[in-house]
Amino acid sequence: MNYCTMCGASVSSRIPAGDTLPRFVCDECGMVHYHNPKVVAGCIVSWQDRILLCKRAIEPSYGLWTIPAGFMELGETTDGAAARETMEEACAVAEIDDLFAVYNIPHVSQVYVIFRAHLNAPEYSPGEESLETELFSKNEIPWDDLAFRVVRAALKRYVEYESVADHRPYVGDIIRR
Amino acid sequence: MNYCTMCGASVSSRIPAGDTLPRFVCDECGMVHYHNPKVVAGCIVSWQDRILLCKRAIEPSYGLWTIPAGFMELGETTDGAAARETMEEACAVAEIDDLFAVYNIPHVSQVYVIFRAHLNAPEYSPGEESLETELFSKNEIPWDDLAFRVVRAALKRYVEYESVADHRPYVGDIIRR
Repeated sequence: MNYCTMCGASVSSRIPAGDTLPRFVCDECGMVHYHNPKVVAGCIVSWQDRILLCKRAIEPSYGLWTIPAGFMELGETTDGAAARETMEEACAVAEIDDLFAVYNIPHVSQVYVIFRAHLNAPEYSPGEESLETELFSKNEIPWDDLAFRVVRAALKRYVEYESVADHRPYVGDIIRR
Repeated sequence: MNYCTMCGASVSSRIPAGDTLPRFVCDECGMVHYHNPKVVAGCIVSWQDRILLCKRAIEPSYGLWTIPAGFMELGETTDGAAARETMEEACAVAEIDDLFAVYNIPHVSQVYVIFRAHLNAPEYSPGEESLETELFSKNEIPWDDLAFRVVRAALKRYVEYESVADHRPYVGDIIRR
């Protein structure tokens, strides 16, 4: 960050009075600019005993498979964002069931909020950000071609735990290797 | 937002190619500036059968009671942020137990991630942002003097459900009245 969003003057990194961390502060108008982690909302969408995955048509991880997920927008709910991403990436209506997991990814300042969801009909097709969309049974999941470690972690947990009726939502971390 | 953080030129609100929502885009360098919801991490901290609350020394809601909670910082985990807020606001070491609830507050673009936690000793005192810190039994909670609707919702749920051993984390919305 070089310039103030409010007045266009230059900013400096310093600790404002009463704060504990350095922030970008405007040298002219004094506005403090905060930067915070982003929420990625997504869902593991099932149809009968299969799971909906999308092959990414965009970087990062072009050509690799992911669950529908993306940055939450202003004015959304986490579950609403997960359903929107499913519509955008797979042209599918995700009926959100319950919270599945929260993954912290501190080195990129992201929090993944992942729900379980289902389709009411096997209707889906690639959205603009996807090359392909496909239902995979649990023993067909393309483990070697998954887009992100958090997707792998969530799917692994889903495959292992989904049959446990009272499975509590998991909170875990993805730590830089 | 008036000016680009990168180059200091003016920005315009428009929908970038391939996007679906208006963003602030730099008129000179073309940088797209995204704004996303913020995570507020907090915890309901217990000592034996009492709950730790803080009377706010800052606006908004100066003088009203809250659970320890605040904006998650870059590089943090949700549970780490909740423990840090407890230290900052109540000078207390929160031992995080499990996820209690996720509250979406779409009209202010916030997501509260609230954990259950406990103290290992009844050691606490007001931090800089608190006027007082106090342990309340469940029938002493100052319902009429709570700082935010989300705090009231979480405490109400805690008081009602905390005794249920397999209580699943709740996902709910706080909607504009």
